[in-house]
Amino acid sequence: MSDVKQDERPPDETSGDMPAKPPEDQDAFDELYGLDDETVDACARAVDEGEPAERLRELVDDLHAADLADLLERLTHDQRVGLVGALGEDLDYEVFSYLDYGVRDDLVDVLTVKQLAAIVADLESDDAVDLLEDLPEERQQAVLRAVPAADRAFYERSLSYPEESAGRLMRHEVVTIPNFWTVGQTIDYMRDEEIELPDDFYNIVVVSPAYRPVGLLQLSKLLRARRVVAVSSIMEEEPKLIPGDMDQEDVAFLFRQYGLVEAPVVEESGRLIGVLTVDDVVDVMDEEAEEDMLKLGGVSADDFFSDVFSTTRLRFSWLLVNLGTAVVASLVIALFEDALSKAVALAVLMPIVASMGGNAGTQTLTVAVRALAVNELTAANAFKIVWKEVLVGGINGLLFAIIMGVVAWIWFANPVLGAVIAGAMVTNLLIAGLAGTLIPLGIERMGQDPAVASTVFLTTVTDVVGFFVFLGLASIVLL
Amino acid sequence: MSDVKQDERPPDETSGDMPAKPPEDQDAFDELYGLDDETVDACARAVDEGEPAERLRELVDDLHAADLADLLERLTHDQRVGLVGALGEDLDYEVFSYLDYGVRDDLVDVLTVKQLAAIVADLESDDAVDLLEDLPEERQQAVLRAVPAADRAFYERSLSYPEESAGRLMRHEVVTIPNFWTVGQTIDYMRDEEIELPDDFYNIVVVSPAYRPVGLLQLSKLLRARRVVAVSSIMEEEPKLIPGDMDQEDVAFLFRQYGLVEAPVVEESGRLIGVLTVDDVVDVMDEEAEEDMLKLGGVSADDFFSDVFSTTRLRFSWLLVNLGTAVVASLVIALFEDALSKAVALAVLMPIVASMGGNAGTQTLTVAVRALAVNELTAANAFKIVWKEVLVGGINGLLFAIIMGVVAWIWFANPVLGAVIAGAMVTNLLIAGLAGTLIPLGIERMGQDPAVASTVFLTTVTDVVGFFVFLGLASIVLL
Repeated sequence: MSDVKQDERPPDETSGDMPAKPPEDQDAFDELYGLDDETVDACARAVDEGEPAERLRELVDDLHAADLADLLERLTHDQRVGLVGALGEDLDYEVFSYLDYGVRDDLVDVLTVKQLAAIVADLESDDAVDLLEDLPEERQQAVLRAVPAADRAFYERSLSYPEESAGRLMRHEVVTIPNFWTVGQTIDYMRDEEIELPDDFYNIVVVSPAYRPVGLLQLSKLLRARRVVAVSSIMEEEPKLIPGDMDQEDVAFLFRQYGLVEAPVVEESGRLIGVLTVDDVVDVMDEEAEEDMLKLGGVSADDFFSDVFSTTRLRFSWLLVNLGTAVVASLVIALFEDALSKAVALAVLMPIVASMGGNAGTQTLTVAVRALAVNELTAANAFKIVWKEVLVGGINGLLFAIIMGVVAWIWFANPVLGAVIAGAMVTNLLIAGLAGTLIPLGIERMGQDPAVASTVFLTTVTDVVGFFVFLGLASIVLL
Repeated sequence: MSDVKQDERPPDETSGDMPAKPPEDQDAFDELYGLDDETVDACARAVDEGEPAERLRELVDDLHAADLADLLERLTHDQRVGLVGALGEDLDYEVFSYLDYGVRDDLVDVLTVKQLAAIVADLESDDAVDLLEDLPEERQQAVLRAVPAADRAFYERSLSYPEESAGRLMRHEVVTIPNFWTVGQTIDYMRDEEIELPDDFYNIVVVSPAYRPVGLLQLSKLLRARRVVAVSSIMEEEPKLIPGDMDQEDVAFLFRQYGLVEAPVVEESGRLIGVLTVDDVVDVMDEEAEEDMLKLGGVSADDFFSDVFSTTRLRFSWLLVNLGTAVVASLVIALFEDALSKAVALAVLMPIVASMGGNAGTQTLTVAVRALAVNELTAANAFKIVWKEVLVGGINGLLFAIIMGVVAWIWFANPVLGAVIAGAMVTNLLIAGLAGTLIPLGIERMGQDPAVASTVFLTTVTDVVGFFVFLGLASIVLL
């Protein structure tokens, strides 16, 4: 892969269409990323034209499972099902651990229980649980009955933990040794061909007789120590032990905070039940970051791969809430019909105050939601941060009050109108700073996710305050 | 750490203030997260009251470097400098690899060149480069002159790569072996006490005589293989080789896509120059997700830890751009002063059309920006996605046209006004779907970051179209 360019198309065919990066970077990236647009097109065409399974197998044969997943995501539902059907047992089942959830569910729906059981048996235990947890109850039970009893016990324990918890993410393939062993004993154990060990692992979990983790032994340390050395003297003591019911967002925080690569997962009694690896946590971090971003943008779930109908439905409810708040803002405007009919300039200028408040508030809100997500904003510094944001809002409010006051004065040759918009501007930006912090803090305090509903509350506040103060001041001063 | 509760405060003191999570989860998390609000408060007080250095050392003695970094972030500038001064050489220099950039720069400003050189010498090479790259040119040169020549050569090569590239992130402590060795030779080499190896590593890079990486050898594979086996037969062949000048966002994508833990970094000739580990990439992913989210919210950089003045300045320019677009929207309204003076209802209803367009467009935009960032939206499917978004906008536009048309009709007892707002609504939501995809695609095509300026272009479009179509239709139909 590294020395051979895998696609022979002229370098500017795709990048010329849309050069997101300088061409040489794009080339380097395309060389490392195993999927290109030509392969996607060729597969789509081959399925559409009903070409023989042999041809399809050739097309996807060299693809890494992760790239095959990307390919399936880019096909239509019919093409996807056609391709998977044509590949049959030649399909690399690992692809199911990489697929976007929406697309995976779409495929899983057309598979038989027997096929699903084969896939579950083939996947690593954490990926198997990830697949099982999204199946409808009845199908899940049927698949569980079809897998070997030993695996079933693990899957059932894992599924007994709440969704999005460490218990769901862990895998049960762990290498453990007793805490009284020496380096020599450990090496002999690992080199014993009779013993089955996972394919790849980076640490050995050192356990007490009660099967509680008491240390982590890095393979590099093991390799470098003398045979007589006690394992307990070179292991990392007091490793971070993740409770099975810990929320995945907290798990991700701990991995990031302490640069962890692997961490043992324990049940309530302290017994080892599995291990979490950084690659699972990378996926979680990705999901959580995506969730926060999408929620702030008013999208409830990643609808990129959904069809038109689902996407429309997903977005409708948010827009309906927004319509409600927009109507509330209009009711505020309607209070001042009299003023508006006397001075049309008010109608021209009023959206500016509301818009500036909304934008200033969104800035504050975005920073606050992010700080809450990464544990930087806590009860201890909440007051300090609210006060800071009010100050920032006040100062920027004053600056924009001056700018907009002068603009309005000159535009409508009316200094009093300038003063009115200046007063409304500074008030609304102050309120925006206050609401931009208090709203997410309040939502978090109620145990809810501040990314979800913050935006709509905020814009309601800044719209209502913006229109009310501007039109209200105008009614008093101008008329 | 795992068996001992490290803080003795009653469990509900903090969580009672702001229970973001169920209390039992919060407890489990607090036990694993090494910093609590009490320590922060105690440190802040101790510094303020000028308590002896001894007392401060005691307070922070047990903290992990990552937690000490969090502690420093939560103190004020004066407290921070006071604490670092009091700790002196007892300060765990690793803290500099965990600090938020703003806070780190704040501290670095008060350190001497000699102190900085000691810190750089103490850090791992990748963290040292991360610290060096943010120093002002002159100080950077002075520090480089003060570190050992061998390290200096690496730092200088690393700094010769562009900012935010793989070359800046890599570390140069790599374990390499020639591709013709056996497992036995490799194990003997690793167990040779004369040879200095990095503290922790997970893979050995197998290199050709020209020092080009030809494989990665997992330690677990090495441990389990027989001594006579050739390394080349158990190594992972054709590893992903990251070019030194690859952008960190692409690096993060590749690590995530292929679940990488370590990857060799090569210069243009293909020679190995360093290695990237997943923990560095986790930080990058975090930064990139944060950047996209903050940029969409109109915040240019993470200003959470900045002072009031810096934060105000950082946000001012974005608000100024927004003021410009708001004024443009007002100019559109001003075109219809005549209509507005005749029917005040228009002033009451017009923000609704603009607001719905802005929100629908933001939904589309958020999904598109995210899809661009994770390489799901490409030249190959751009047309399909634009078409889908126009359809979604059109369908939701029709639904909200009906709802709002009826509301306006009843509210103002005027069916024609209802028809006008319905027409404007469907037009603006169609345009919002179109603009919400075309704007980020266009910005990406120009080689710019679509997260930065998309929002402001989008709201300009939806405001202008919303006001123009609504007031224009009204002028034609109603007056």
